[in-house]
Amino acid sequence: LVSVLSSAIIVYRLPWTWKCSKLLMKFIHAGLNTIAMILAIVSMVAVFEYHNARNIPNMYSLHSWIGLTAVVFYSLQLFLGFAVFLLPFAPVPLRAALMPIHVYSGLTIFATVIATALMGITEKLIFSLKNPAYSASPPEATFVNCLGLLLVIFGALILWMASRPHWKRPPEKNAKVLRPIGGTPEGTEAESTMTDGSNADKSDLRINSEAARKQNLKLDEAGQRSTM
Amino acid sequence: LVSVLSSAIIVYRLPWTWKCSKLLMKFIHAGLNTIAMILAIVSMVAVFEYHNARNIPNMYSLHSWIGLTAVVFYSLQLFLGFAVFLLPFAPVPLRAALMPIHVYSGLTIFATVIATALMGITEKLIFSLKNPAYSASPPEATFVNCLGLLLVIFGALILWMASRPHWKRPPEKNAKVLRPIGGTPEGTEAESTMTDGSNADKSDLRINSEAARKQNLKLDEAGQRSTM
Repeated sequence: LVSVLSSAIIVYRLPWTWKCSKLLMKFIHAGLNTIAMILAIVSMVAVFEYHNARNIPNMYSLHSWIGLTAVVFYSLQLFLGFAVFLLPFAPVPLRAALMPIHVYSGLTIFATVIATALMGITEKLIFSLKNPAYSASPPEATFVNCLGLLLVIFGALILWMASRPHWKRPPEKNAKVLRPIGGTPEGTEAESTMTDGSNADKSDLRINSEAARKQNLKLDEAGQRSTM
Repeated sequence: LVSVLSSAIIVYRLPWTWKCSKLLMKFIHAGLNTIAMILAIVSMVAVFEYHNARNIPNMYSLHSWIGLTAVVFYSLQLFLGFAVFLLPFAPVPLRAALMPIHVYSGLTIFATVIATALMGITEKLIFSLKNPAYSASPPEATFVNCLGLLLVIFGALILWMASRPHWKRPPEKNAKVLRPIGGTPEGTEAESTMTDGSNADKSDLRINSEAARKQNLKLDEAGQRSTM
């Protein structure tokens, strides 16, 4: 689940995918998130059936509360993502306004899922290790602790990749219009202005979209003035 | 601890502090983080002494492993922050290069501290609630679960505030140079160029600094060309 979720997050951030069309990337992003959602539902059903079969109460722990909250917000995120960014009906200003929220809530849900997993690991280790107990640090405990630590490191790496501006997928027009020209020193200034202008492509995945948009608008103005 | 930590994070994001000098803000940020570090050390000493007094083993749980990792990285963060951003010796390019890492690791440590707290709450509820047990959902369990949920919501709000570009503290020059002029429609274009140019102030707290810097450099070029 965590690995599918993180693939869905960083799919725009892999340089070898920058040549794919944006629509294809959106489909991959949506598809991976749908798979993650299915995995989440399957695992929740499994937990409830396991609890019922063993007469363990459901939904009593903080792990279950936060986990269910994350799944509820995740399904909302998935539904809004489909409705706004995948279906062709939403106007560009709405997409632009919702994109920072979509990115923020996606990453926050991801972090919450990792925290939920860590709580689940803690519970499982306490409940399952009895003789010797968790506190006696048997090899299983050390092994699973290492897994938990790796999960945190993995999550931190994904958040690093997702928040680096220079790992952002370059805008479409850039790839198509500028590739054949690039390299000559004469045209570079005008090019760079065009490149940054096309950054105003509103539905792109970026954390800093709002500030960047404002700067780009100003840059466009400045560029126009300079060529007048 | 979490509240002092979050105050230290959002101290640059409060509009009523934007009039204070940047140096004062840095001192407040460093001071709050130092208080948080002292609290972390005091609480760790308390835990070790409690464990030793009750003959409970130390450092066996995932909670303790991740918590100690967070404290180690936090002290590293604090030391590097002092050395690079507070002491006047580090050159501007070094500050500019380290700032995105400082911001990212600060926020990641904050999220990790919340995850550690959630694991600690889970452990404490399982170990302390015996008759009735945690799984019977006594009022204490529900109450502490609510606290845990509020902790997640609180952490998410702090991360939202810390990652919004328009809640960023405006650059110094802007506040000083432009306040007396502002408002006249004639000068606004040149002003906005100057404002964005002063964004290149390298040691400022921003997540998107690298992309913004590149854009600002281009903007500066464009602005210079436009005034030539």
